[in-house]
Amino acid sequence: MGKKGNLMSVRHDIRVVDATIRDGGLVNNFYFDDEFIRDLYKANIDAGIDYMEFGYKASKELFDEKKFGKWKFCDEEAIRSIVGDNDTELKISVMADVGRTNYKRDFLPKSESVIDMVRVATYINTIPAAIEIAEHCHKLGYETTVNIMAISNAKESDMKQMLELLGESNVNAIYLVDSYGALYPEQIRELADLYLEYGEKYGKSIGIHAHNNQQLAFANTIEALGQGASYLDATMSSLGRGAGNCPMELLLGFLQNPKYNIVPVLRFIEKNIIKLREEGLMWGYDIQYLLTGRFNQHPSSAIAFTKAKRTDYAAFYSELLDKE
Amino acid sequence: MGKKGNLMSVRHDIRVVDATIRDGGLVNNFYFDDEFIRDLYKANIDAGIDYMEFGYKASKELFDEKKFGKWKFCDEEAIRSIVGDNDTELKISVMADVGRTNYKRDFLPKSESVIDMVRVATYINTIPAAIEIAEHCHKLGYETTVNIMAISNAKESDMKQMLELLGESNVNAIYLVDSYGALYPEQIRELADLYLEYGEKYGKSIGIHAHNNQQLAFANTIEALGQGASYLDATMSSLGRGAGNCPMELLLGFLQNPKYNIVPVLRFIEKNIIKLREEGLMWGYDIQYLLTGRFNQHPSSAIAFTKAKRTDYAAFYSELLDKE
Repeated sequence: MGKKGNLMSVRHDIRVVDATIRDGGLVNNFYFDDEFIRDLYKANIDAGIDYMEFGYKASKELFDEKKFGKWKFCDEEAIRSIVGDNDTELKISVMADVGRTNYKRDFLPKSESVIDMVRVATYINTIPAAIEIAEHCHKLGYETTVNIMAISNAKESDMKQMLELLGESNVNAIYLVDSYGALYPEQIRELADLYLEYGEKYGKSIGIHAHNNQQLAFANTIEALGQGASYLDATMSSLGRGAGNCPMELLLGFLQNPKYNIVPVLRFIEKNIIKLREEGLMWGYDIQYLLTGRFNQHPSSAIAFTKAKRTDYAAFYSELLDKE
Repeated sequence: MGKKGNLMSVRHDIRVVDATIRDGGLVNNFYFDDEFIRDLYKANIDAGIDYMEFGYKASKELFDEKKFGKWKFCDEEAIRSIVGDNDTELKISVMADVGRTNYKRDFLPKSESVIDMVRVATYINTIPAAIEIAEHCHKLGYETTVNIMAISNAKESDMKQMLELLGESNVNAIYLVDSYGALYPEQIRELADLYLEYGEKYGKSIGIHAHNNQQLAFANTIEALGQGASYLDATMSSLGRGAGNCPMELLLGFLQNPKYNIVPVLRFIEKNIIKLREEGLMWGYDIQYLLTGRFNQHPSSAIAFTKAKRTDYAAFYSELLDKE
């Protein structure tokens, strides 16, 4: 598949999605103070970012409201308390996890909601359930995406079948998600080509959500972009689970479209992100994340290693070997 | 130019060069204690690394011995105090900077030295002087490379002329050096292709030395490798000036040749690198380095920003704009 655009060209199909709260919420159980969220909302508007994801629409039957901040649930009133009627160019997104959402009850019709887009997160074996949620939200009037996680574990034949099903659905975009930060740029280019083949056949956009276990989240994002992916996830200072995500400041430094502006992102980071680190929140590249990425394993053991303040990397390597 | 190898293949032309002391010495003025150097030497041997660069052969007339550790000068006795006669598979390299070395005096004939390779660092406008040094060292019996720094600022026509001159010389390898961490993977692939065109014509190997200003040092290294580059620079935990280098632990995680072993590198990091950070040594990706990288500027202003413990990134951005 040919390259799309080059370093001098502007691609008007690009959609930058700020996933700071949603992926960052996995680090602090969604306990952000309102000032952080308001500043982020304003920074995203000023930076020309296309979507801001506020968090998850998690089921309150499954998750105790006392154990999570409000962005785990994203009640309409919670979002409106920040954005009012959101009379801006910035669109608002939430994520629904297959098996963790009461979507039939918890989504209003789009005409009554400030939410613009629902992204459905799924593993490859629950694609039918994901499509059911996406179709439900599509009928309510929302833009929808399906984000297939942990794709580094999937078989190519399963992927093709999945892409056919998604192609025939009403979703707007299909996301390539490297949950474990396991994939190298050449693999990302190949996978993006496969996704784009179906995307072009069925008129779907392709998205990329990368993790930074091997310091490749930004590289993999711009490589997928170069192949033709157009929905690009990033987070402020890479805030996100484990090794974190594609850093927004790197992505906006790269994009040529003058609608994007890095300065509000820099201001947001200096005011709000440094404080999180000082308060003890931990995320970002470190050896333990490289190792789970390299072993193509979920980062949970590396997160536990980090919380225990361990630095015995060689011993951790042996522990991972034993899990193979 | 076609891709060389894939994720399942072993390329026997690969040479991994540990530049930890040499590039890391730019962070601490080469004041490493001997235990650090001994542990590094042992780790490199055990990890199957091909070359260890001990530092610079800087002229003692130009640089005050009292202001730098011994690896700024790399006297034969200093190296021998670590390696003895170096009866190992690991080869030893030093770097000579054009205009900063008294090469005619300071290099012994190879037969009297434990040094195997001399790498000459140069800007593109001093290529003739670099070739003179390399030819001198070649005649003395050393392997040689010429490393052209700050290539992101060079014109393509100048590059071609430079590559012709180097092609006609006796150097073993020609290095692509992204000193400012300014280049994106697609630019690295194009530059690597250009270097390789001349490399194949003249029988020279091509090397890559990347900096991590935009979290692309590892990505750019493996992309250059994929195009056919074979000399790969990396440092332990990316220790090096400013944003640091390609992390050795990521590179060894990637390489398929079973001769490479990541575990001694992990042990070295847990024993020796964490301590350096605790002692206050600062290097690695941060916003200020992203910004100098993006502006294609020398990292000196970002290093000063770091030392001053500033975090006003937006103001720093404006300062860099004024330098454009």
